[in-house]
Amino acid sequence: MPSTPQASGLLTDLYELTMAAGYLETGFDARATFELFVRSLPARRNYLVAAGLDQALDFLEGVRFSAEEIAYLRTLPVFQAIGDNFFEYLAKFRFSGDVWAIPEGAVFFPGEPILRVTAPIIEAQVVETSLLAAINFQTMIASKAARVTQAAAGKNVIEFGTRRAHGTEAGVLAARAAMIGGCLGTSNVAAGMQFGIHVYGTQAHSWIMAHEDEGEAFRKFLEVFPDQAVLLVDTYDVRAAVDKIIALGRKPRGIRLDSGDFAADSKWARKRLDQSGWQSVIIFASGDLEEERIAQLLAEGAPIDGFGVGTALVNSIDSPSLGVIYKLVEIEYHGAVRSAAKFSTEKVTYPGRKQVYRFHRPGGQFESDIIGLEDEQFPNAEKLLQPVMTGGKRCVARTNLFEARERCRKQVSQLSERLRSLTTEPDSSPVSHSEKLENLLSDARRRLRAAART
Amino acid sequence: MPSTPQASGLLTDLYELTMAAGYLETGFDARATFELFVRSLPARRNYLVAAGLDQALDFLEGVRFSAEEIAYLRTLPVFQAIGDNFFEYLAKFRFSGDVWAIPEGAVFFPGEPILRVTAPIIEAQVVETSLLAAINFQTMIASKAARVTQAAAGKNVIEFGTRRAHGTEAGVLAARAAMIGGCLGTSNVAAGMQFGIHVYGTQAHSWIMAHEDEGEAFRKFLEVFPDQAVLLVDTYDVRAAVDKIIALGRKPRGIRLDSGDFAADSKWARKRLDQSGWQSVIIFASGDLEEERIAQLLAEGAPIDGFGVGTALVNSIDSPSLGVIYKLVEIEYHGAVRSAAKFSTEKVTYPGRKQVYRFHRPGGQFESDIIGLEDEQFPNAEKLLQPVMTGGKRCVARTNLFEARERCRKQVSQLSERLRSLTTEPDSSPVSHSEKLENLLSDARRRLRAAART
Repeated sequence: MPSTPQASGLLTDLYELTMAAGYLETGFDARATFELFVRSLPARRNYLVAAGLDQALDFLEGVRFSAEEIAYLRTLPVFQAIGDNFFEYLAKFRFSGDVWAIPEGAVFFPGEPILRVTAPIIEAQVVETSLLAAINFQTMIASKAARVTQAAAGKNVIEFGTRRAHGTEAGVLAARAAMIGGCLGTSNVAAGMQFGIHVYGTQAHSWIMAHEDEGEAFRKFLEVFPDQAVLLVDTYDVRAAVDKIIALGRKPRGIRLDSGDFAADSKWARKRLDQSGWQSVIIFASGDLEEERIAQLLAEGAPIDGFGVGTALVNSIDSPSLGVIYKLVEIEYHGAVRSAAKFSTEKVTYPGRKQVYRFHRPGGQFESDIIGLEDEQFPNAEKLLQPVMTGGKRCVARTNLFEARERCRKQVSQLSERLRSLTTEPDSSPVSHSEKLENLLSDARRRLRAAART
Repeated sequence: MPSTPQASGLLTDLYELTMAAGYLETGFDARATFELFVRSLPARRNYLVAAGLDQALDFLEGVRFSAEEIAYLRTLPVFQAIGDNFFEYLAKFRFSGDVWAIPEGAVFFPGEPILRVTAPIIEAQVVETSLLAAINFQTMIASKAARVTQAAAGKNVIEFGTRRAHGTEAGVLAARAAMIGGCLGTSNVAAGMQFGIHVYGTQAHSWIMAHEDEGEAFRKFLEVFPDQAVLLVDTYDVRAAVDKIIALGRKPRGIRLDSGDFAADSKWARKRLDQSGWQSVIIFASGDLEEERIAQLLAEGAPIDGFGVGTALVNSIDSPSLGVIYKLVEIEYHGAVRSAAKFSTEKVTYPGRKQVYRFHRPGGQFESDIIGLEDEQFPNAEKLLQPVMTGGKRCVARTNLFEARERCRKQVSQLSERLRSLTTEPDSSPVSHSEKLENLLSDARRRLRAAART
């Protein structure tokens, strides 16, 4: 495993750095705890799947400010009144904090902290933006992938979306998150090399169009890839193409439909292939697929063996944003510990260092979660947050994506039918707050109101 | 300007590489022309804004396969039957083709090629996925930014979305595209350094919450940033916060509202600030903003001087995908030139090397576009596609983002009211195909049908 590459400290919002300067210049050397969570369920999601932790920890281990970057910061108008002290601090900047997190692939719900950072306040603040970007994106994609693979009901789903991803890095990360959510593999070769994800894909329309004759295009591809060719049959006419392949007499690994009436064409093609003794030739479908269309095709009895899902998956197209936030919940300053909460209109956050306690039914089915303070005792509850970094160093192995995918599969299967439903909203939240946490919130509210009156 | 960094050739779909092996192994050394375009208008968009060209050209100049990457490819099952010839080819791989493109910031419409690649077919094929990812994403974001800034009607819009972007690279690229679409700047510091975009931002809720007293939090920040502080006033109670700032007697640069009733609070705050003689203190708003909400606020007379727009902008949340595609349109093999088209159900593509001819009214207003063949003559028409790369080398300067933003602003302002509308769809497309192009499509269709009958 290569060592963690350096990451630029400038991959952040400017206000993180102005606040850092502010804390430093005013001597506010507090130790702070921030929690990262999703405020509310996005549209069309009953549960979420945690992903992106490895990239978040990579960032924390690798974040640095280079001399060139510091020179750039010195040119910004906002820092003109700031002395050398701050820039010298940045040159030596390392993240030295402790992190607790929910493992990748775990199912979770809004309000539940999925990552908790305790560190000198400047460090915890500077890393906010990149932590959010890492967790927010992959969690959104893994949560979508869990729906898509659930709809595929055991048929293979391959992530095909790099070309529609938000740049090439997003394509690689989407492939990773899609695997956590249940995909068998990806078309993205870089993701295959970087993360050991299985890669798939054989030919595009251009291969067919580049040759004058479609049958000749198939024949040549089979020559080069005798055992691996999945031939694309919709460039001109699906049924004519299938007949051309059969006429070649050379069995491909499969055929791919990329447009047209997938149900009718797959049934027709399956019959034709079987009549030719080609029962082992697979039928693969791609093109504007998502969970509803896949479920519909399978309900119609379409004999499709695998699905390539791109745009809808890597953009979580039916629910294209996730409100992951990172909030200060506790601060320790000159020996005194104070919990912090926010009471903006419609945006209350709970104070205190929290833990998520999960309860299962005797048969292993998921029952409910309680969000409580970290030191509460709930017999028989599973504690979702576990330490992942101590003093700025990882204290757990990197995520094994095969294990994370299995964790996701298992936890989704343990949800109630209602929570697992792709079409129905849950009638109530399976999450509540502990009495101690509610009391802490009331105390904080009372304290702030009292302060406001003075 | 640093030289273009290397880019991994693995940032692609596996099928690009299997086709490359196929072309090489079968000796198919054709020269191909591919065109990149958007098939149809996405929801809620009447026009699109080209962006991402610089990153596309960076990729073409820098794409390489390292020894480590080639070693990985050799392990893939699909390549087990492929000889050394292919891997030796990849080790020497360079993009040597010619590229024409529409400049960044230009307004365009579906069906119009925005980038055209002519190269040895393997090269043109291998780069497809990364080209699409670069252009698709930034074009989607620039097109959204044009709407948001149009709604802001001259008020400043700052891109605030990195934390909700698809990873940190996507955050940087979104900031770039948002500027092309009209944003004044970004909160993303790395984008500021890399692209010279102006960066903005001052403090978050955590600064307020970290201090026991809100007034004290304001006072300390003003001490460190006497001329630059934009103070966040919605952590507990907006109006109480504004009064605390006024009571400090130290004028901030501005205040920021991040939740609540922006119209009512901004009117109240403006009055209060003005009464204190603080007419120059700006009011900035952020939090779940998009074009409709901004237009509504301004229509209600909210005295807001600038808007921070994040999630909705960097995810193009109301229209979260764009169908940019890359299609083979012409092939030259052993001296014979043949145009290529595709006739899948609902997915016809026009053959031939094309140009976009734009017509203006005498006053400079946009009139219409004709998509024609590259060598057609239309007096008075502006040709949108221009050469940007020859023999694998850039033949134009990198995009000046200030010029691209001005190009976008000007071209959007030249559109008809109907096309510029944020709420109404155009009654008809302003784009048609030339007679020569329609004839070429009919010829290709006839040729393929004749071939199908034999």
